[in-house]
Amino acid sequence: MAASSKTGLVVSAHPGDFVWRAGGAIALHAKKGYRLKIVCLSYGERGESQFAWKVAGVKMGDVKAQRKDEAQRAADLLGAEIEFFDAGDYPLRSTPAMLDRLIDINHELKPSFILTHALHDPYNVDHPEAARLAQEARIIAQAAGHKPDPTRAYSAPPVFLFEPHQPEQCDFKPNVIVNIDEVWEQKRKAFEILAAQKHLWEYYTRVALNRGMQGGRNTGKPMTYGEAYQRLFPMVLEEFS
Amino acid sequence: MAASSKTGLVVSAHPGDFVWRAGGAIALHAKKGYRLKIVCLSYGERGESQFAWKVAGVKMGDVKAQRKDEAQRAADLLGAEIEFFDAGDYPLRSTPAMLDRLIDINHELKPSFILTHALHDPYNVDHPEAARLAQEARIIAQAAGHKPDPTRAYSAPPVFLFEPHQPEQCDFKPNVIVNIDEVWEQKRKAFEILAAQKHLWEYYTRVALNRGMQGGRNTGKPMTYGEAYQRLFPMVLEEFS
Amino acid sequence: MAASSKTGLVVSAHPGDFVWRAGGAIALHAKKGYRLKIVCLSYGERGESQFAWKVAGVKMGDVKAQRKDEAQRAADLLGAEIEFFDAGDYPLRSTPAMLDRLIDINHELKPSFILTHALHDPYNVDHPEAARLAQEARIIAQAAGHKPDPTRAYSAPPVFLFEPHQPEQCDFKPNVIVNIDEVWEQKRKAFEILAAQKHLWEYYTRVALNRGMQGGRNTGKPMTYGEAYQRLFPMVLEEFS
Amino acid sequence: MAASSKTGLVVSAHPGDFVWRAGGAIALHAKKGYRLKIVCLSYGERGESQFAWKVAGVKMGDVKAQRKDEAQRAADLLGAEIEFFDAGDYPLRSTPAMLDRLIDINHELKPSFILTHALHDPYNVDHPEAARLAQEARIIAQAAGHKPDPTRAYSAPPVFLFEPHQPEQCDFKPNVIVNIDEVWEQKRKAFEILAAQKHLWEYYTRVALNRGMQGGRNTGKPMTYGEAYQRLFPMVLEEFS
Amino acid sequence: MAASSKTGLVVSAHPGDFVWRAGGAIALHAKKGYRLKIVCLSYGERGESQFAWKVAGVKMGDVKAQRKDEAQRAADLLGAEIEFFDAGDYPLRSTPAMLDRLIDINHELKPSFILTHALHDPYNVDHPEAARLAQEARIIAQAAGHKPDPTRAYSAPPVFLFEPHQPEQCDFKPNVIVNIDEVWEQKRKAFEILAAQKHLWEYYTRVALNRGMQGGRNTGKPMTYGEAYQRLFPMVLEEFS
Amino acid sequence: MAASSKTGLVVSAHPGDFVWRAGGAIALHAKKGYRLKIVCLSYGERGESQFAWKVAGVKMGDVKAQRKDEAQRAADLLGAEIEFFDAGDYPLRSTPAMLDRLIDINHELKPSFILTHALHDPYNVDHPEAARLAQEARIIAQAAGHKPDPTRAYSAPPVFLFEPHQPEQCDFKPNVIVNIDEVWEQKRKAFEILAAQKHLWEYYTRVALNRGMQGGRNTGKPMTYGEAYQRLFPMVLEEFS
Repeated sequence: MAASSKTGLVVSAHPGDFVWRAGGAIALHAKKGYRLKIVCLSYGERGESQFAWKVAGVKMGDVKAQRKDEAQRAADLLGAEIEFFDAGDYPLRSTPAMLDRLIDINHELKPSFILTHALHDPYNVDHPEAARLAQEARIIAQAAGHKPDPTRAYSAPPVFLFEPHQPEQCDFKPNVIVNIDEVWEQKRKAFEILAAQKHLWEYYTRVALNRGMQGGRNTGKPMTYGEAYQRLFPMVLEEFS
Repeated sequence: MAASSKTGLVVSAHPGDFVWRAGGAIALHAKKGYRLKIVCLSYGERGESQFAWKVAGVKMGDVKAQRKDEAQRAADLLGAEIEFFDAGDYPLRSTPAMLDRLIDINHELKPSFILTHALHDPYNVDHPEAARLAQEARIIAQAAGHKPDPTRAYSAPPVFLFEPHQPEQCDFKPNVIVNIDEVWEQKRKAFEILAAQKHLWEYYTRVALNRGMQGGRNTGKPMTYGEAYQRLFPMVLEEFS
Repeated sequence: MAASSKTGLVVSAHPGDFVWRAGGAIALHAKKGYRLKIVCLSYGERGESQFAWKVAGVKMGDVKAQRKDEAQRAADLLGAEIEFFDAGDYPLRSTPAMLDRLIDINHELKPSFILTHALHDPYNVDHPEAARLAQEARIIAQAAGHKPDPTRAYSAPPVFLFEPHQPEQCDFKPNVIVNIDEVWEQKRKAFEILAAQKHLWEYYTRVALNRGMQGGRNTGKPMTYGEAYQRLFPMVLEEFS
Repeated sequence: MAASSKTGLVVSAHPGDFVWRAGGAIALHAKKGYRLKIVCLSYGERGESQFAWKVAGVKMGDVKAQRKDEAQRAADLLGAEIEFFDAGDYPLRSTPAMLDRLIDINHELKPSFILTHALHDPYNVDHPEAARLAQEARIIAQAAGHKPDPTRAYSAPPVFLFEPHQPEQCDFKPNVIVNIDEVWEQKRKAFEILAAQKHLWEYYTRVALNRGMQGGRNTGKPMTYGEAYQRLFPMVLEEFS
Repeated sequence: MAASSKTGLVVSAHPGDFVWRAGGAIALHAKKGYRLKIVCLSYGERGESQFAWKVAGVKMGDVKAQRKDEAQRAADLLGAEIEFFDAGDYPLRSTPAMLDRLIDINHELKPSFILTHALHDPYNVDHPEAARLAQEARIIAQAAGHKPDPTRAYSAPPVFLFEPHQPEQCDFKPNVIVNIDEVWEQKRKAFEILAAQKHLWEYYTRVALNRGMQGGRNTGKPMTYGEAYQRLFPMVLEEFS
Repeated sequence: MAASSKTGLVVSAHPGDFVWRAGGAIALHAKKGYRLKIVCLSYGERGESQFAWKVAGVKMGDVKAQRKDEAQRAADLLGAEIEFFDAGDYPLRSTPAMLDRLIDINHELKPSFILTHALHDPYNVDHPEAARLAQEARIIAQAAGHKPDPTRAYSAPPVFLFEPHQPEQCDFKPNVIVNIDEVWEQKRKAFEILAAQKHLWEYYTRVALNRGMQGGRNTGKPMTYGEAYQRLFPMVLEEFS
């Protein structure tokens, strides 16, 4: 299969998440010719939009529109499609219709990989809910009796979990570091679209630099910027590397 | 209490589960005179019936009927009663009425043990849901204020978790191996009722042989076929063994 | 901030819990001038009222009233306010309205700490549900877009988990022991209000004595009665102690 | 095999350990006719003999003799043999000769069970060392090439770990509670031989009472005094109980 | 670097280990042109040679010679070099000279990967000691000040842990499955060289078949025989797969 | 006790460790009037001195002297005493004499806290050995029979573990963040003494900034630079904070 026909699926609770946590991997795979699709479950309208809410008389619809615009621009910049589920945030509540749609997306996209949140996060209830939904959709997508179609071919892809804000508190143990040197400028530009979270631009730049140095240490080949993931499920190899 | 008045309860997400994972223990206790009851939460109609769905024009009702028939025959062969909850699979969704019925079953049966699924399974969301429901029913069954009846005696029994398909990925750590040598032929015959999952017959035969060898190694007394469980809750002993 | 303007929030599944598990800390902080508020999610009417249900013809309303009265008297004795959510027990089911009310309480109280249940309890499904609800309310209370109010100041406080009945089975690892010597008599008197659970008075007196001895061993300063907690989230220090 | 020909082996770092942690199980099995042998690795002369060292001019030999006498009397009272290895304490350092002797004891005794310390203890380095030595001896005792003797039959017995002083800090999770009601008086009398550790008599009486209540809760059959253990290695069952 | 100049290092406690646990990966990489080197720390002369010791009057030297011959033939068959350290078994005791030699081997070989034992094994003390030694040598090999040589280039390779005999008891969680279909016949022939452990031939054939089926399930691409490993240390990727 | 009479003990495997991992806490407590003592177990002469070894003909003695000088200057700058044990590095091997000296230091210093390495580090065998030695000395220092002296008062202080280089790989979970804003400049200047490890200056500056932001998030009070620790052993509180 040519890279150009490969695809990847990203399931993100809020717009910030796919930028801070997976912006590098998204841009990198887009550059390699993958079709990337982000499912952005909410606009982060209540919990990640402090500045918007400081404006007197601001309405929920305005805040959502503003965050949606940012998210769309960030996805464009990274080279990915984006679909919004408008599930709300703080708390994010998924519905059967959202699950159904996410299963359909799995069937349509046949992704080579799924990126989503870490399984635990004591600071945030939306992140584990996004991960739970992504896992459930991936599992049901394998069931022959779900919208039966004998011509359908779907093989559940590997899942890689995003690095959360405070990894140790979330029992996150990275086992994959993606070298994002060649797309770093794009990732950084995507940060700058998220004007409301300016305090995090430098934070996540430092995370990228430190994961880059760790990546170099773990391979002996220098790299500058990294993005850490935790791979679920065993991988099959034909050669150790 | 004579063995003949003892009972055991098995809470299984799909028909295959009680066969692959607990068929030996069910047959063994039935042979000892226990009344065994299987609560089969779904027919596995969507997720474990690939072959059925390959038939053009097959209907959900047909698939369920086919799997129900198989499950009934397997239960008969193993010497157990079976009650179906028809909760659906992929995903299995339990309802308050199901919980209520399972509490009643606990009260009626007063089981000496409960067998159910492992608490985690990243490959399957129905298995942990079955375990959750079984645990919840067992706990509520102890509440004096649930359908109050001062004459009721119910003591929450020990719970033993089934071995999942990929034990290490499910954080399953067996601490009990049941010697099923004397009922192995029955368990194997029950496998053969599950025509749609023929690829698993040899797989679970190998699991039984390897657990048997481990059982022998852990006791010094040879055995051939074993079934592994993880016991929850401490046991009380009057003599080490 | 003078201690007299400080507050603490306790989220308890059943009346017994705040007495056995946090009675010392409540009385101690009340004595220091804190305003203490207990949110008691249920009356423990079904699962911790065995004796009440032995009376022929007793009604649910009677049992609830009896337990409410006990809980109110225990809170009074310990120096705390109490608010009942009447969420039911065995099982405790929280609703969106309860979550909303608990968020409001967080905003009104601005607690310096939250005390609630351990995250896991294989013997009881109400305890983890109470902890989950308390955590969710604390997290949402931080969202600027939840009932937006630019004048609101709310900083999510540290959370300390109660010692469960069988700590090791609940993966409870205490990292804080509160010295409750100066309020022990109050805590013990609160035990005695819980007439229906007399078998636990001595049990929890022994727990307090043994935690007290452990506290002394961990500091080198003798103490007699202790209450153990597990602190979630890192603490910030300016001096080790 | 008649109970009277069965044996049990206890590997204890210091004299106090076999009394506080296993005195009930020792007395219980002795009463059932088991031959019980305690290997007491040190006299606890440096770390458990604070009172002895307060006497001006006391010599190491005196302290050892005093503790040895206590340990011997406690073993007699509980119905067990005792062998001292004099490995020192704080720190306990085992030698190849001690390992060799402990292997021989395994061969001679052919124990039905081994009791020893928990695997971790951040408060004490002698306890894990005792457990390590006991495990190593048990493993080597199985090697056909160790002092080869084709007539030797030795099957490695199950291992049960003692409850440490602060169980949660030692990652100790009890899965076995031994009902020691019928030998409680003996265990308590053995406490009273350990005059130097009088502060622990009541502590471990409370531990026994609370483990007893937990044992009752886990089985539904009341008991008063319990001793908790963590069983290593799976057990083989022919019937759930 | 052409595959033909790549190398791999295997550190095995006993001869059986590299055959049962890594025979497939060794043969597979040998076939790809890797130079493979096995460091076999002992001959398994005491603990894995039960049959040899049943012969009256057999000497340690004879047993060692017999096992050495088997190990050499198995290595030849798999396409690997083998070096024996004669460290003894049950217990395996490494010396500073062995550590030094293993560091030199790291420097000479510059392996692309190291295969060794799981970190824990409550059934066997030699296995974790082999893993400890392999890890220590790999770490020290990176120190510029160990036998300083400014021209030396050594980059610590990834480490993959063997599947132990009872994986769950050893806290082994496989995250890599190697597809060994094309070398299975070689691996099976190597089993048959180990005449003394004939009872394990079928056991490890079943392990290979079940890991093969799991490998297929985790990728969607069928395979028949697998070998499971646990990779330590994060991997660096430029594309998810 | 006035702060000026308080003391703290730091047990560091190599010179870099006390600078990168604890430089802030050392300077902060020194500024508060504590007497701080660093026990530096090795000079890091083999494993952390790559640049020194690039000089043709350099001798071990020269490298040690160079690193000792750096370490002394860094300690001076931070306001601490330093004592070198010259235990070697890669591997660090402690001796009975070193243990004895460290016990004496515990007795002399009577520290209010001990800082040392994380308990696990798969990248480094010297770090866990330093932590093991520090723990053992602290434990033995409590034994009345070790160099008996009835006038001695020693109470084992709390232990705080350093943040390792790759925290998640070392199972390090920080529960304490020290605000080091007021001594940051000193810590940074100490970095610059370690000329050979210039690549780490920015790395550990980023660690300090990110731990600072996490500290702010966990308390609601902004801070800029933090140092993370994992506290072992429960703390005793009289008021939650």
